[in-house]
Amino acid sequence: MEGHVKAYQLETFNNVEGIILRERDEPHCGPTDILVRVRAASLNRRDAMILDRSYPLPARPNVVPLSDGVGEVVAVGGNVTRFKPGDRVTGSYFARWRDGRISPDLIDQLGCTLDGMLAEYILMDEQWAVDVPEHLSREEAATLTCAGVTAWSAVANSGAAMPGNTVLTLGTGGVSLYAIQFAKMFGCRVIAATSRNEKADRLRALGADEVINHAATPDWGNRVRELTAGLGADLVVETIGPDTLEQSLIAASLYGQIVLLITRGGKASRIEIDGSAWSSSLASIRRVFVGSRADLEGMNRAIAAHKLRPVIDRVFPFGDAHEAYRHFMRGDVFGKVVIAGA
Amino acid sequence: MEGHVKAYQLETFNNVEGIILRERDEPHCGPTDILVRVRAASLNRRDAMILDRSYPLPARPNVVPLSDGVGEVVAVGGNVTRFKPGDRVTGSYFARWRDGRISPDLIDQLGCTLDGMLAEYILMDEQWAVDVPEHLSREEAATLTCAGVTAWSAVANSGAAMPGNTVLTLGTGGVSLYAIQFAKMFGCRVIAATSRNEKADRLRALGADEVINHAATPDWGNRVRELTAGLGADLVVETIGPDTLEQSLIAASLYGQIVLLITRGGKASRIEIDGSAWSSSLASIRRVFVGSRADLEGMNRAIAAHKLRPVIDRVFPFGDAHEAYRHFMRGDVFGKVVIAGA
Amino acid sequence: MEGHVKAYQLETFNNVEGIILRERDEPHCGPTDILVRVRAASLNRRDAMILDRSYPLPARPNVVPLSDGVGEVVAVGGNVTRFKPGDRVTGSYFARWRDGRISPDLIDQLGCTLDGMLAEYILMDEQWAVDVPEHLSREEAATLTCAGVTAWSAVANSGAAMPGNTVLTLGTGGVSLYAIQFAKMFGCRVIAATSRNEKADRLRALGADEVINHAATPDWGNRVRELTAGLGADLVVETIGPDTLEQSLIAASLYGQIVLLITRGGKASRIEIDGSAWSSSLASIRRVFVGSRADLEGMNRAIAAHKLRPVIDRVFPFGDAHEAYRHFMRGDVFGKVVIAGA
Amino acid sequence: MEGHVKAYQLETFNNVEGIILRERDEPHCGPTDILVRVRAASLNRRDAMILDRSYPLPARPNVVPLSDGVGEVVAVGGNVTRFKPGDRVTGSYFARWRDGRISPDLIDQLGCTLDGMLAEYILMDEQWAVDVPEHLSREEAATLTCAGVTAWSAVANSGAAMPGNTVLTLGTGGVSLYAIQFAKMFGCRVIAATSRNEKADRLRALGADEVINHAATPDWGNRVRELTAGLGADLVVETIGPDTLEQSLIAASLYGQIVLLITRGGKASRIEIDGSAWSSSLASIRRVFVGSRADLEGMNRAIAAHKLRPVIDRVFPFGDAHEAYRHFMRGDVFGKVVIAGA
Repeated sequence: MEGHVKAYQLETFNNVEGIILRERDEPHCGPTDILVRVRAASLNRRDAMILDRSYPLPARPNVVPLSDGVGEVVAVGGNVTRFKPGDRVTGSYFARWRDGRISPDLIDQLGCTLDGMLAEYILMDEQWAVDVPEHLSREEAATLTCAGVTAWSAVANSGAAMPGNTVLTLGTGGVSLYAIQFAKMFGCRVIAATSRNEKADRLRALGADEVINHAATPDWGNRVRELTAGLGADLVVETIGPDTLEQSLIAASLYGQIVLLITRGGKASRIEIDGSAWSSSLASIRRVFVGSRADLEGMNRAIAAHKLRPVIDRVFPFGDAHEAYRHFMRGDVFGKVVIAGA
Repeated sequence: MEGHVKAYQLETFNNVEGIILRERDEPHCGPTDILVRVRAASLNRRDAMILDRSYPLPARPNVVPLSDGVGEVVAVGGNVTRFKPGDRVTGSYFARWRDGRISPDLIDQLGCTLDGMLAEYILMDEQWAVDVPEHLSREEAATLTCAGVTAWSAVANSGAAMPGNTVLTLGTGGVSLYAIQFAKMFGCRVIAATSRNEKADRLRALGADEVINHAATPDWGNRVRELTAGLGADLVVETIGPDTLEQSLIAASLYGQIVLLITRGGKASRIEIDGSAWSSSLASIRRVFVGSRADLEGMNRAIAAHKLRPVIDRVFPFGDAHEAYRHFMRGDVFGKVVIAGA
Repeated sequence: MEGHVKAYQLETFNNVEGIILRERDEPHCGPTDILVRVRAASLNRRDAMILDRSYPLPARPNVVPLSDGVGEVVAVGGNVTRFKPGDRVTGSYFARWRDGRISPDLIDQLGCTLDGMLAEYILMDEQWAVDVPEHLSREEAATLTCAGVTAWSAVANSGAAMPGNTVLTLGTGGVSLYAIQFAKMFGCRVIAATSRNEKADRLRALGADEVINHAATPDWGNRVRELTAGLGADLVVETIGPDTLEQSLIAASLYGQIVLLITRGGKASRIEIDGSAWSSSLASIRRVFVGSRADLEGMNRAIAAHKLRPVIDRVFPFGDAHEAYRHFMRGDVFGKVVIAGA
Repeated sequence: MEGHVKAYQLETFNNVEGIILRERDEPHCGPTDILVRVRAASLNRRDAMILDRSYPLPARPNVVPLSDGVGEVVAVGGNVTRFKPGDRVTGSYFARWRDGRISPDLIDQLGCTLDGMLAEYILMDEQWAVDVPEHLSREEAATLTCAGVTAWSAVANSGAAMPGNTVLTLGTGGVSLYAIQFAKMFGCRVIAATSRNEKADRLRALGADEVINHAATPDWGNRVRELTAGLGADLVVETIGPDTLEQSLIAASLYGQIVLLITRGGKASRIEIDGSAWSSSLASIRRVFVGSRADLEGMNRAIAAHKLRPVIDRVFPFGDAHEAYRHFMRGDVFGKVVIAGA
């Protein structure tokens, strides 16, 4: 380290050029801290929203971006008991939210109000970190914190993911692909909606039992009903909305559940649903905002047991972080966009 | 009976004059039937919607209206085991839905696809009927089936009604007043919203801890937050929506639940919610469509144990059914509008 | 049929010779009945308990035994809407229990208080019957009603069957093998306990990740803990108890769930658990008594989606019903004992 | 403080004389600590078990006993944000267990592995403490942590406490009386069992609808069934067991829940239940071990909203701690035994 380490800082907003690579003082562990050499990080929609200030939680000035990443522990504070040097760890999205319900004092997030993963090193309280499944590559392990846990909370905490039930996913971003993989792991049938026919084969290879094109079929809600003998989907992981919410309601079964991700909000967004879409439905709407450390740990247990492999869209070198952001924000991805460690 | 009995029939739609008093052949019990002498019936919004054809389920031609009513068993079929002459009974809204989840083959409703309570006599399969709590007057007992069970499903099945939690109700119709009473029975604090200041005292007398005027305070969602130390309501019984849904979301706590009644749909209705109202909320939306016979029985047990008295707005004689409908549809009620038996 | 049909009747107790093949009058459909030509039936422990009168519910005199079986509809009553001749159906264990909670008036059981499947024909109300998955052979489809639903209720209704969690099963009877198959379908890791080492390979072939010998390892509870990194099993399907209950408690995780089948009771049985086994456990005990028609339908959906194949131990011809009982009661089975149709 | 403060220490076991009053160095706040002047503390069965070493968790040498107590904040560390001097606080039983599920690293308990409340001062991390309801006296507020939360977890987390349901409590200790009060707050009917007829009136005054004598009526399980129209109790708060567990099973309703407190275990205890008591019951058994800080906070909200007053059996001066222990361990109490602050 020689006294200085490299880290990107979010210095000005709205343009990826505002994320600037800087030298920082070498971090030192307090008694309960671990120092982690970052090996890979990955991008989520929240990172684009933080950049353009549409995210509900304002970023700390000059924060290091990105919640998702993985690295090895290189030093530990004197009171640390959970980790030792050499352990491979990732962070928990709401660093201090361990289990149960979140509350306002637990709102701090890696890569937003706390320094994140787009750096050579990250210093974390040992309680913020968890082990990662051994079979994962560093690129795969760099995608668990936000994308993985969001999909896990949507599927595993729904009470609706079980054999004989159908799960509907929208799109091919990281959360959607995780949702497909998790839904299959829970024994569900999966219908995957995409706007690109050329992605159908990859969705099927990932486990999707049916693929529909929601751009080419404006009333795709009814298409989902046809594919389910008129019953509809028991769980809809709504990663696109709010525009798609009306069709999602039509696609949902009588007691279906629509999971609406919380980053789908924002000042510009607006829900509009025609009464005919909801007047005879008992479907519920549940919000998900990533999850707790316990959710992350439960997901990791399942990923390890099933040797599940997260889907990587593309890997960029550490120095090309701006290009990675641009690629991610163009939106035509299939899985996670990763930035390798410095 | 002398061979003929009186019953109102819904013969033409859109005007209360289409509900016509007729003589019908005296009904006779099949093996599992009970014959009930109706003593009182009551009106619900669904009855107005059935009349103007905005209800999701079309009425059977010439059906006897009204789901809610009470009477005494006067004859029983040869295989009847649940009742004997003299028993006081009411019907279950979805006559054949006993417990668990509803399914399409259980959709028949009293006063819509099955003959209802606006008659001298009603013939029911013994499985469609339940005993009513002894302490209730006939007028009170005539309000359980739809209004009571709807409020009960909203409150009791929420998982959110418990001491220390706050329930928000909207308006002074039958469902809203039941919801206030039930919420107090569950130990909750109640905030009742009304558009009429003169009703505040009666709401307080019924148990409301706070009364707000949602017409005079357009941003009443924030008023609810103020009254809950910034936390919001844990349960919102949304009997007015969809227009009020945006403020209900603002009023709800972080993990709050908004119960949206299913009759709040209909072709003309449309949900519009600004993104700022929902972008940082984890509140869920649950739909309720009355409930099963098991819900009705559970509610009756609770009403009996607490000697709860339903609120009667006004009682009309049997011959003034049209006037009762008109009074009800003007909307300015406080509790249930009852029509006495013939 | 020519006026008469064959059926076994339970005429005297305690000895299989008391189950006698008789000629009965040809059954005729009432308005809501279906007449089913039975193609196969199967045995459950409850059938042995009914025979020796240790079952909680006394059998009707001369009842036709066996709850589990499958056949084709050959005639339907005038009001039947759910089925048509040619449909392949099975019955629901508690014939009248459709969904939700059971209550005393729904206690009637096929093969106990209602005529069962050990006959050429069975007459059922159409509400008692359900379709069976198409991919199943008649022998496989004859095992769903009791064994299948019991295992399904144990696993699917536990809330504990999910990827990353461990399910422990005991023995190789029909319920245990179904539980293994279902647990795998839910994405769980399975530890299967048997007293016979020679069955280990077949258990593994069925999906068991680990097999232990609970007879050779008296403290097998701790063996389960070792196999789960000290955590214990999240779900224990207790098909043997009550003797095994103490070790099951030791095997269970901190928040584990032990499912205790209700036929495990009986006058002779007695639970004895040393305090050291339960003094530091938060594990809960849940009872299961087969399930409702909705459970049967949900299971069938899952079996169809996963093309799951029930395990048949041995098939006996219709005339050898006594030998089938004797083989079953000797207890050394691997899966279901089936009796072919007449 | 003048450099020294008084505290009882648990120095030797099995005899109350092993709890010795000592002078300790004045404690000083670390950055996240609060220093609390203790005003009252109270005894729980776990304190007697810690003394005689029958408690599952071994006490730290020379630990200050008692989990339950209340005091005022007199100093705060530099990073403290939750409290300020003058705030009245109590501690959370498992000091670090905030919400969700407990795990082994959260096992530390006040008055066992961490210094407890039988002292002039207690130093706590600010995360271990919560505000207490304003209307409570210091003696009442000293009983929340263990007794209150145990009863709250038993009742509030059961899903069975609702109007129309019946809760059965056993005995007149602190947990039992809290359970009666909470069950009434949830709208339940309460049957309270005691072995002392002379306590019946006080139980009724506290809210019990029925009082039975479980010592005078050995088959009191059936007495509970009689008092519930044959249905049984929906929730049994089993504070006495394991000897009473058999009758509790008989007393429970078909889908009843028996809450078995975890301190009811211990090496000497042994569950023995005759098969006839459980062979036809679907009742479940749930374990409770106090609860999390979130449970404590939820309980306090409810206590504050209902102005509930905990029941104090007797208050001893600080210097008479030994006498308080002896009185408590004789067992014939009605509510909580409190020791006033120094």
